Order: sequence, then structure tokens, then C-alpha cells
Amino acid sequence: MKEYKKETRINKKKIFNDPVLGFISISDELIFDLIEHPYFQRLRRISQTGLSYYVYPGATHTRFLHALGCMQLMHITLRSLKEKGVYISKDEERASKIAILLHDIGHGPFSHALESTIINGIHHEKISLTLMKLLNEEFNGKLSLAIDIFLDKYPRNFFHQLISSQIDLDRLDYLRRDSFFTGVSEGNVNSERIITMMNVIDDELVIDAKGIYSIEKYLTSRIFMYWQVYFHKTSVTAEFYLIEALKRAKKLFYKGQELPTTPTLQYFLTKTDFSDLKNEDLYQFSHLDDSDIISALQLWQYHDDKILRILSKSIIQRKLPVSLIMPKPLTNNVIEKLLIETEKIYNIKKGNYFIHQNKLNILPYNSTKDPIKLLLKSGKVIDLEKMNNQVFIKGLSKDIIKYHICVPREIGGFIQRFL
Amino acid sequence: MKEYKKETRINKKKIFNDPVLGFISISDELIFDLIEHPYFQRLRRISQTGLSYYVYPGATHTRFLHALGCMQLMHITLRSLKEKGVYISKDEERASKIAILLHDIGHGPFSHALESTIINGIHHEKISLTLMKLLNEEFNGKLSLAIDIFLDKYPRNFFHQLISSQIDLDRLDYLRRDSFFTGVSEGNVNSERIITMMNVIDDELVIDAKGIYSIEKYLTSRIFMYWQVYFHKTSVTAEFYLIEALKRAKKLFYKGQELPTTPTLQYFLTKTDFSDLKNEDLYQFSHLDDSDIISALQLWQYHDDKILRILSKSIIQRKLPVSLIMPKPLTNNVIEKLLIETEKIYNIKKGNYFIHQNKLNILPYNSTKDPIKLLLKSGKVIDLEKMNNQVFIKGLSKDIIKYHICVPREIGGFIQRFL
Amino acid sequence: MKEYKKETRINKKKIFNDPVLGFISISDELIFDLIEHPYFQRLRRISQTGLSYYVYPGATHTRFLHALGCMQLMHITLRSLKEKGVYISKDEERASKIAILLHDIGHGPFSHALESTIINGIHHEKISLTLMKLLNEEFNGKLSLAIDIFLDKYPRNFFHQLISSQIDLDRLDYLRRDSFFTGVSEGNVNSERIITMMNVIDDELVIDAKGIYSIEKYLTSRIFMYWQVYFHKTSVTAEFYLIEALKRAKKLFYKGQELPTTPTLQYFLTKTDFSDLKNEDLYQFSHLDDSDIISALQLWQYHDDKILRILSKSIIQRKLPVSLIMPKPLTNNVIEKLLIETEKIYNIKKGNYFIHQNKLNILPYNSTKDPIKLLLKSGKVIDLEKMNNQVFIKGLSKDIIKYHICVPREIGGFIQRFL
Amino acid sequence: MKEYKKETRINKKKIFNDPVLGFISISDELIFDLIEHPYFQRLRRISQTGLSYYVYPGATHTRFLHALGCMQLMHITLRSLKEKGVYISKDEERASKIAILLHDIGHGPFSHALESTIINGIHHEKISLTLMKLLNEEFNGKLSLAIDIFLDKYPRNFFHQLISSQIDLDRLDYLRRDSFFTGVSEGNVNSERIITMMNVIDDELVIDAKGIYSIEKYLTSRIFMYWQVYFHKTSVTAEFYLIEALKRAKKLFYKGQELPTTPTLQYFLTKTDFSDLKNEDLYQFSHLDDSDIISALQLWQYHDDKILRILSKSIIQRKLPVSLIMPKPLTNNVIEKLLIETEKIYNIKKGNYFIHQNKLNILPYNSTKDPIKLLLKSGKVIDLEKMNNQVFIKGLSKDIIKYHICVPREIGGFIQRFL
Repeated sequence: MKEYKKETRINKKKIFNDPVLGFISISDELIFDLIEHPYFQRLRRISQTGLSYYVYPGATHTRFLHALGCMQLMHITLRSLKEKGVYISKDEERASKIAILLHDIGHGPFSHALESTIINGIHHEKISLTLMKLLNEEFNGKLSLAIDIFLDKYPRNFFHQLISSQIDLDRLDYLRRDSFFTGVSEGNVNSERIITMMNVIDDELVIDAKGIYSIEKYLTSRIFMYWQVYFHKTSVTAEFYLIEALKRAKKLFYKGQELPTTPTLQYFLTKTDFSDLKNEDLYQFSHLDDSDIISALQLWQYHDDKILRILSKSIIQRKLPVSLIMPKPLTNNVIEKLLIETEKIYNIKKGNYFIHQNKLNILPYNSTKDPIKLLLKSGKVIDLEKMNNQVFIKGLSKDIIKYHICVPREIGGFIQRFL
Repeated sequence: MKEYKKETRINKKKIFNDPVLGFISISDELIFDLIEHPYFQRLRRISQTGLSYYVYPGATHTRFLHALGCMQLMHITLRSLKEKGVYISKDEERASKIAILLHDIGHGPFSHALESTIINGIHHEKISLTLMKLLNEEFNGKLSLAIDIFLDKYPRNFFHQLISSQIDLDRLDYLRRDSFFTGVSEGNVNSERIITMMNVIDDELVIDAKGIYSIEKYLTSRIFMYWQVYFHKTSVTAEFYLIEALKRAKKLFYKGQELPTTPTLQYFLTKTDFSDLKNEDLYQFSHLDDSDIISALQLWQYHDDKILRILSKSIIQRKLPVSLIMPKPLTNNVIEKLLIETEKIYNIKKGNYFIHQNKLNILPYNSTKDPIKLLLKSGKVIDLEKMNNQVFIKGLSKDIIKYHICVPREIGGFIQRFL
Repeated sequence: MKEYKKETRINKKKIFNDPVLGFISISDELIFDLIEHPYFQRLRRISQTGLSYYVYPGATHTRFLHALGCMQLMHITLRSLKEKGVYISKDEERASKIAILLHDIGHGPFSHALESTIINGIHHEKISLTLMKLLNEEFNGKLSLAIDIFLDKYPRNFFHQLISSQIDLDRLDYLRRDSFFTGVSEGNVNSERIITMMNVIDDELVIDAKGIYSIEKYLTSRIFMYWQVYFHKTSVTAEFYLIEALKRAKKLFYKGQELPTTPTLQYFLTKTDFSDLKNEDLYQFSHLDDSDIISALQLWQYHDDKILRILSKSIIQRKLPVSLIMPKPLTNNVIEKLLIETEKIYNIKKGNYFIHQNKLNILPYNSTKDPIKLLLKSGKVIDLEKMNNQVFIKGLSKDIIKYHICVPREIGGFIQRFL
Repeated sequence: MKEYKKETRINKKKIFNDPVLGFISISDELIFDLIEHPYFQRLRRISQTGLSYYVYPGATHTRFLHALGCMQLMHITLRSLKEKGVYISKDEERASKIAILLHDIGHGPFSHALESTIINGIHHEKISLTLMKLLNEEFNGKLSLAIDIFLDKYPRNFFHQLISSQIDLDRLDYLRRDSFFTGVSEGNVNSERIITMMNVIDDELVIDAKGIYSIEKYLTSRIFMYWQVYFHKTSVTAEFYLIEALKRAKKLFYKGQELPTTPTLQYFLTKTDFSDLKNEDLYQFSHLDDSDIISALQLWQYHDDKILRILSKSIIQRKLPVSLIMPKPLTNNVIEKLLIETEKIYNIKKGNYFIHQNKLNILPYNSTKDPIKLLLKSGKVIDLEKMNNQVFIKGLSKDIIKYHICVPREIGGFIQRFL
């Protein structure tokens, strides 16, 4: 059968059709192989915005698509920079594309939601890095430069800044993408416009001063996305219940109870110490996705443990508690009363599985740490907030803080008393 | 705690934000309750276009959103018809909205893909109807008119035609929606434009003759969606592998082997006779969704059975076979050879788990059965294809037929010989 | 020929296709007749954004389309309010549509630019009102209610508020429309979203509190449109030259010189007192449009008068002066020097035809005069800036002030000295 | 004043904001100068789609913007081809951009409408070429290569094919642009998608075979634009009246009557022989735009000549005749009767100023002359219609023919008799 060997060689060119950015071409074989790798394919089964699809039913898009989008924005950015005369080598181009493609590869199920629950206290960036190193071994060191850029060890800073800064391509992709899939038009960002305005001076990323309003628009859009999507009271609530359900499951396992679940999820619910990520941990992790969680919750709806049952049913059937966003937190005293009411209603001892108050905090723009730099027509570079004709920046350079509370539907009215 | 009873009453008004159609308001309490019902919430976990997200990574949208979209189009259509003087009662309006909201409630995991595999030989419409009847009992007969419209038993035909005909709201929603999420712009349909042109004469649905080009555009878009999405060679291939994996799992269960899976999926893999849908069947069905399939495939990647293992791994890791769309089918003789090669390569006896040829057939427009009716300025009603200034219709009134073949990657080159 | 009399009756239904809002249906005969009227058809030849198409070449859209758009937004708004239970009579509906349709009918060529130049000191609203009164006579008093609403004499305030307030439909249309045609995506406003949030309490317009971010987005978009379009330095400069050219032409006529021009424009350049608008004034006005100005400037490029010649050529050939937006004004002393340089260069005595400094002022939101009202879930109505979860409003309640200067290209470099 | 000489140097970089294609950067000084040239600036005052804004009020866009759009598509296309390895020199790039930028520079007022009326029998392409040659002199021969490409004298054919062929960038721009501004969504073309699929084999333009559906979509969209926009009965009618008005004006001048008009227009209405374009002709032509026509029609509304008066008023006030699109032409006999009726009604002798029947003909795809070439995966190049999986092409390879008639409103009913 030698005669067709040649043809079976897989064509490593590929074009993705992204409803947000249009065609995304893969023309590099290494990048093609990374995308094909099971570690990366797993991102197809990780929701980009956690349980936000409970609020915005269109938001079922995945980390997989976001990662491709980031890489495409990198492609467009580097092309634009090269047209402006910035020298970028083939190796740098490939490495920066790989770095942004893989920057989220360590995200677990439901992205941020379960970050610290499933793998005790390990941040997803650490897992990303560990997986990138594993891939680097597998691909004979071809990812070394990408890892350096990812870790901000490469001397030409702008590559890292494109991946992680106050105006990085990660944000430019996810704000626009999440706006597209949620339908929250207030959050739409014209990423191409900003990219057109990017330039490099002394290996630092700068934005052409005439793009000032695009940046202001981007910063205001980001705030709108936070309050309308990422900090939407129902998203925050659903996420809280998800975390509590998994905590409860862990506790039950710890107590020696049997819980129906996939073996992969069971691995993570029964192991407690991940302080140094072992290969087995990563192997298991690479098989874990949203469907493990969903199918477990499906089953736990009928479990003997009342707390687990209520939590699971609330999520699966989308019967979520009442929640509120408030300018000030409720006092401990009030929280105590709410706990007591909850415990009465459910006839349980641990009301704190169901009552949750947390602080929501966003700093729209940090003018002190790594500020955005503008390039004036004169060639001078200045900090964003020193620009004459800015309108919003100064107002955006301080924290916006609000509080979220959720309580069981059955005592939903009760909370009104304290507001 | 009486004092807050009043406030805990759930507000049954709701607004969904649909990225395709914008805001969708629910102002009817019954409809609100139906949407909240677990039967309907399950649709949140059923992919609208099966495994098409393997080709178009944005296409992760669900049956849930499509069902809401259909209802919204019904809302817009009825509002427009009322403005044109068509009498529509409140009961008819509610019933037709409910009928289209629930028309797909019987879809199993991955929508069409597994229709006849999981529940042997039962069409999803039958399950939809059975679930609607169950809901009708639960809601004290309030769905009776909706069911009549769904079954085309209601004398005012246009209500049923809006749900099921050659230019129904179901198609107007899914073509546009699938175009939006896949990024296949060729398939985009201006549904509002067509709806604006709808009218009712003698209780039959007609389209204003000046909308002729919108209809032609709609028919051409539909064809583009078929060849670029629904019949895309990779979608068809992935679907075939999915079906074969589940068939294999059924066989293994039948033979008495143990397979890791969720209890819900196990129920369907081990039961064979669904000829009369029992309540238990429906109860189990209402818990079955895409995550059961995905988490099972995840596990089966490492199963002892080679066939199941290869199929599952191919899907999960997206290492799909080579496939082709052809104008003519391969001969049985060639298929036979391909089977032999496959069996050799995999060292198995049942190559037909991996080799698949099928006919893809689409009739763009059926001019003989229930043709689309046009309303001329003179008040006369004529069949679409009799319209003077149509351009494409005549060419569209015959079947387009192609053939699909897929073979394992390892013998991908082999197939070239026979083309 | 009696036999075809019947058919020649004009069909007074009409559908416009608006690229921004989609189909706009006219189903009222009176409105149809008003749109057909030469006064209204004239708006087809009046640019919506003056000479902004010199900066944004797509912005060639007209007052005609904007007026239709406003009427369509009124249609959508009233439909939405009626669905929410607000009673609106057929007469009120028609009158409020007419009022907004005609609110800009008094705009002269290039909209705002020439407002006080061509018709000395008469504001376009006064002309609008006078034309509406003339139409009211012609249509036997059928516009009386529309005029009352326009003049804020009708007791149900919300109708007037929809036409003129801090969140009126006029702004909702033009911001979105100007954003669409200029391509300035920062200015895009989701007008439907805001309209969906509108309600009426005690005959006053209120916005549902959950629409808070849409309002904030609208206010920020408005600022972006001001700085990027309406106050764009080149738009402001081109407008200044246009005004100066017409002033110069008036002066030359006054001195008894002959100027080539259309008779209509000549009427306005030679008459000086419009303090009470005469019928002849209005008759002439109804024939005046952008083409009178453009064809006059074309001819004046070759006129003997140097000042007129330079100004006209600058506009027609788009060789505009150098301009700047500054945080602070130049001192009189500097302006004086610039004048002297200009007079030297051009060898003329009146440099002030070419040098221009003006103040650009925008109050994003006026929290003291007629504030936007929000409707809380509790039914309470509060002022926008008292809302807990607002982010930008407070920062937007004060004037933003900048200064614009333009000087001839030949001394463009000179201005740098003083900055 | 030497000290600021340096700064007054005009910055020849420029970015246009196109609502259709986004940012268009000009980075070449020669191209900048050509755009600044009065010949090119004149296109700002030439409507792209003639009087189609009488049907689609948003369609006020200009030749200027279309020309920039074409150049931008050329930029994107060449960039894409270079990424695919096609060698393109800097000179070729500049020349092909200039060629497409200037290809329509010879369009007179209202684009196609008045082509053969104002300048007797001279096609706009001839004027384009003559103007390009004049510019070539002015710019010292720097346009020679551009002119060669424009005239198809350059051996690398694909450059000319990108400017003029069955799938040229001119069409890709205007179909999409006209769809955008008219709101006729059926005509929208995904130009970037098709460009991505373009390649060059042996200096001939080919399209990647996987783009087959994009091409089919493009061809169907083109037909939709023809029937909905370019051949819309009201556009055709308005254009006819415009032509007749100018013909009548010419006749009156010829008879020695005085007509109010701009000197520029008068030049063209009184001169009859343009067989060899003189410099004075071109000088005058470069001052002629839509405003000359509009301001003349404004004045002619009140002229003594009844025919001119009726025609002018019909256009300015948009009181257009009744018109129809028909599958077959009316017989000469019927036309004769319509003429008699018209002459009776208007009490004139030349009814043919008001009665018009013409043939509308479109060949969607010419499969015999310069067919579109497809590039198969195998490297083979075949004609479009020989492609296996095409759906519509064969049906599109023949003429579609219809007929248009318009008659005065007063006898509009009369025409019904003969249909």
C-alpha cells in the first residue's frame, strides 16, 4: 500500500470560521499540531464564561474559540506592526502566537468558577505553565521562546504586553467575543481599531494618541461587561452554588460516602494535596471538562444528602436563589439572621452552603502600575491619563466596589427588611 | 414569617437577551412556567447543530435558545398580522407561541444525530408530542389548543403553517441562527423581512408578492446552509462515528459487558423496546443530555473493546476519519475493498463500524406539495413558481443529490484510487 | 376614460428600506401626504451632518432619512408603551409621529452650519414651526395636536419628552445613524434597547432602572460622537469656511457686486431682514438646498474677489486650513499675530475671514434641569444620578470645554510656537 | 519665517474611516496626491447609484467612497496573495492600486444615468482613460504602469483581472457597498471571504475550489441587486426622466432659448461634438457634478417650456410616473396608444418625452467568455461551471430579460388594460 502513503499525510493547513473575527488561517505546522493536541482540544468542552449562559443563553462559547481568537488578533497585530516598520522575526511571531494560544490552557471546567475548588489553591496560570512545559518536552523545546514571552522573561517587552497588560489582546478578544455571544452590545469593543493604533517604541507597546477615544471606549465597555455579565447577580449566584456543591461533594467523599460521578471528577474530589502538580494530576486534569460537572450534578439531584441535593437541583433545573447587588454590605448581624432563617427552612445545620455575601471589585484603569502609553504626533510618549483631550480616564482610575448577596428563594422577601 | 410571603412570589416577567434577535420578553405566566420546567430547561444542554461545532467552533448554541427564538418570531409575526387586520384571539396567540416553543422538546442529545439510536426508531416529534401531553396534564389542559395547532387539527391553517411548512418560523429561526453562530454568512436569512411580507387569506398563510426576492434569497440560503453546515463532510462523519459508538456500546451491554456511563445513559443503552413510550422512559429521557454522551465517550477512550475505544477517542480528540462528498456513490465492490483494508489495519472483524457511505439529498423547494403562496397586488393568490419575475425557483424544484464517504485516516490515500 | 380613474388613485401605503432601522412602513394617509409634500422632499437634499462627509466620506446621509427614522422610533416606542398598558389614542399616536417627523423641517442647507448666516438670526426651530403652521392650514387643521405636542402645550408631557429631552428619540436616532454612516463605532447607541426600557408614570417619561447601563452607554456614546464627529477639528474648520464664504458673498452683494449664483440663493444673500418670516421667504426657503451652495462655491472659485475665491476653492477642492483642538484658548495677543501673518501671506486686509478660534462646549448630562427619571422595581421614581449602581453619571454632570483654532496652511507651522 | 517651514509640510499619511470596510490607510505619497487632486475630489459630489436614493433613501453614497473601497480591497487582496507566496513588486502594487482607484474617475453626474446624454456618445471609460493620461503628465509618467494595467497591456493578467473581470474587486466593492447603503440585505457579498480564496496560477487569477459556495452566493447576490436596486422600476423611471429633461434642455438651447443653469452645465448642454475630447472639455468636465444638475432642475420647474417644466418638477418633487416591470414588452400598437393619451392629457405634441419602454437584460454568469477559474486541491485549474458540487452556476449562465414601461400618473390606470 505504499502508493498512497504520500496522500495520507495530513494537510496541516487549516482555516477556522470564527463568527466574531472571520476566517482564522493556520499555516504553521507546529501551531497546527498544538491545536490538534488533546490538551488543547479539551478547551472545546470548557465554557468561556462559566455559567453565564444561565443569564445569557447565547453565551455557550468555549475557551477553544477564545484561544484561537487571541492568536488571530496576535496575527493581525504583528502584521500591522511589521507594516509600520517594527522588526519581528519569524521565531518571535510563532512564539508569541503560541504563547497567547496556550495562555489559558490550564483552565478547568467552567473556567474561573471552579479554579480554586477542584484543584485546591492552584491558580490556572500555574497549570497553564506546567502544561506548556510538558508540551515543550513533547515538541523538543520548540516552545521555549513562547514560554519566555509568557513569563515576561523575553527582553522585547511588547510581546508580553500583547499577552498580558491593561490593553492586551486577551481582553480585546474576550470583551468583544463575550459581547457578541451574550448580546450585551454595551460591551462591544472595536478590537481591530485599537490594533491599528498600536505601535512599538523602544520595544514597549504604545498606542497612537489619535486612538484616545477608542481606548476610552474600550475601558468603558470593560466596565459595562463587568456589571452586566461577569458580575451579573445571577452569574455570581450560580457560580457560588456550583462551588458549594463541589465543596459539599468533597466533604462527603472525605467522610467516606459514595457519590456517583465520573472517575476523572472523582480523582479531583478525593485528592486534597496538589501543592506540586504531579504528572498523574495533569493527566487526569487533561480529561476533565464541563460535562463531568454537569453529569455529576444531574445525578446528585437525587442524592441522600440534602445539601448536595438542593444545590445540584438548583443548578440543573435553574431554580436559583434570590440575589442582589448592593452598594454596601449587610452587617454580620443580618447575615447571622439570614443563616438562621435558612437553617430553619431547610432544617439543616449548615446554612452557609446557601447564604453568600461577597465583595465585587473592579479597577477600570490602573494609572500607577504599568499604565497605557500614548504616542504623540511629535514622537513623545506619555501616560494615558496625562493626555489633554481624555474625557473619562481620570474618573476611571479608582476602584468601583459593590456587594453581592444571595439567599434561598423561600426567604427572598425577608432580605428586603434590611435594605 | 407571613410578612414577607408576598414578596417571595416569583416575578413571572422575564427578558432574555438573544444575540440574534435582541430582547425576548416573556409576559405570559403559563409560558414562563413552561420555560422554567425541567423538560424545557434540559434543552439548555442539547446542542442545536449536533457535532457541527467540530467544524464551526462557534456553533455551540442550544435547542433552548432556538426554541425561544422561534417563539419570538411567532410574537413578531402575529403582531404584524394583527396590524394588517388579521383577527387573532389571545388564546390563539398563546397557543401558537406554546406550540412552537415546545415543538422540539423531544430532541435527545446532539439533536438529530442520535434520534433513532438511543431511542430505537422513535422520531423526536413523537417524543415532543408525548411530552406536550404530559405537560398538558400537569397544567390542567391549558395546552390543548397548542397541541391541536401542533398536530394540524386546528381549522385556521396558518397557525400550523407558521410552525411547519416550507417557509415556517422554525426554519426562519434556525437558518439565521445557525448562520450567526457558525459564521457561514452565505446562510444568513433576513427573517424579519420575510415576516413583514406575510399575510393571511382565508386562514392560509400567503406572502406578499413584492417579497419574491426575499423568498428566493431564503431558498438559496437554505441550500448554502445544507452544503456548508448540515451536510458538511466532517459533521456527517462525526455524527456517523457518534452513532456507531453508541451502537457498539449497546451491543456490548447486550453481550453483558460492563461499561462506565451515567445511569441515565445506561438506561437507554440497555433497554431495547420503546414502541410505546412509558412514563419511566420519559422520566429518564428528561434527564438525558449532551453531557451524558460526552462523559461516556471520555471514559470509553480507554475501554477494552477496541472498536468502542477507537470510535470514542476519534470523537473526543477530534481525530476524525478522512471523508469526501462525491457526485456519485462508490460501487459495492469498492466499499467491500475499503472494508477489507480497514479490517486489516485495525485487525478487527467489523470494518463497517468505520466505513460509511450515505446519500445526501435536499429538495430546495417542493412545488407540488403545499407550495408557498404569493399574494398579488390585485388580491389574487398564486403559487410561488408561477410568479412572473422569479429567478431561481424553477431551478430549485428538483432534488440535489450527493454522496458522502468516510474511511479511517490510515487508508485515506487508498480512496483516491477509486475516484 | 372613466374606466381607469379608480386605478390611478395613488396607493398611500409605502415601505421605506432604512439601512439603519430596517423597514419603515407608512400606513397613515396624512403622514403619507406630508412625506410627499415638497417641503419634506426638500430634506432629501439637506445633509444631516453638514460638511462632516469631508472627514467621514460615508456621512452623506440626509435630514430626510433621519426624519423618517425618528418617526419609526416613535412608532416602536408607542407600540412598546401600549403593550405595557399605557393608553395612547389614535390621534395622539398620529400627532406625535407627525411632530417628530416635521421637527427638523426648517433646517436649511448643511443643517446647522448655515443656520444663522443665510437667514439672519432665525433659529431653525422657528422656521420648522412656521412651516408646520403653513402645512396645518393646507391640511385643514389636522396638524394642530402635533403642533401642540411640538410646543410642549399638550398636558401629557411624555409625548413632548419623546421629541425633546435629554433622552429623546431625536438623539436616539441621530447618534446611531451618524455612527452608522460615519463608521465611528464608538458612537453606536442601542436605541431599541433603551426604548424597551421606557415607561410612563403620571404622564411623564421614565426609564426602567434595569436599563441604567444602557443609559450610561448612551451618554458616553454621545460624548464620543461630539469629539469624534460633531466637534472634529476638520468639520468645525470646514463649517467656519463655509460661513465665511457666505458672509463674504453677502457683503459683496451688499456692495453692489455681481456674483454668479442660483436665484434662490441670491434671494437669501441679498435680503437682510427676516425678523418676521414672510410667505415669500418661506416659498424661497422651500427651494433652497445643499446644491445651491455647492454650485455657487464651484463658480466662486474663479471670482475676482480674492477672499471669496480662496474660501470657495478651499472648500470645493478640500484644501482646508490647519486646525487644532486645545485645552485652553490662545490669547488675543497670539490671535492678533496670526491675523497679521495671514494678511501678509494673502496680501489682504481682513485676516479674520481665515482665522478662527472658538469654544467647544458639551454638557454630557444636565442633572439639574429636567433630569432623566428612573423607575425602580418598587414603583418609586428617582433621578438618574441618585441611582445606586450608576458608574459614570456623576462624572458626566459637568461641562467639557475645549477650544478650536484654524489658520491657513501657509502659516500652519507658525502656530506650533504658541502651544 | 523659515523656522516653521519644516512643519508646514503636509503629512501625507491619512486614514479614512469607511463604514463598510473600516479603516483605509493611505501610506503612499503619490496615491495621497492623487486623492487630493481636484479630479478625484470631484467624485465626492457624484452619487454612486444615480437616483436610486429616490427608492432607497440611504443610498446617498458617492463614487469617491467606492473608489477608496476598491483600492482597499486591492490592498487586502495583494497582501493575501503575497502571504500565499505570489511575488508582487512595490511598483506593481502601487500601480494596481492607482489603476483601480482611478478606474471610475471619468464618471459624470449621477454616474451611469447621464453618461451618453451630457457628453454625446462618449463612454465614461474613455474619459477615465483621458483623465488618467492627463494626470500621468502632471505626475511625470508615474502612472504609466497603472495605465497599462487598466488597459490590459501588462503581461501579468491577474492585475487587470482584479480590476475588470467577472469577479473583480470593483464588483466586490460596489455590490457590498450598495447593499449596505440601500439596506437590501439580499445583495450583501462577503468580499473578504472571496478575497481569501483568491490565488494566482501562471499569472492568472483563480479561486480556491473550496470557495465555490462563496462564488455562487456572490453571483446570486448580484442578481438580487440588479432586480432590487439597479433595475428597480422607480430607479429606471427616474433616470429616464432625468435623461429626457437634459435632452429637452439641449434642444431648447439649440433652438436658441435661454435656460437658467450653471455655466459648467451650460457648456455641456450647448456643445454637441465631443468626438475628440479637448482639454477645455476636460477642464469643464472636472467642474461638473450632481449639484449642477439638481440646481438646474430646481430652476427649470418654473420654466415656460411645458415639457421641461413637467419633467423637472417630477424629479425634484419626486412625483414620478407609474411604472412596471414586465416579462414581455408591450406592442408598438399599445405604445402608440399610450403616446396619444399622454399627448392629449398634457396637450403637447411629443409624448415620447414621457413614455418609455426598455429592455432590462442581465447575464448572471458568462461561462463562455473569460470564465472564472477554480483551483482544485490537486493543483488542477478548471472552469467554474465544470465544478462537481456547484448548485446554481448552470442555471445562471443565460440571460434574464425583462421589460420596463413608465407612463404619466394621469393615465396610470390605462396601462392595466393591456397587461
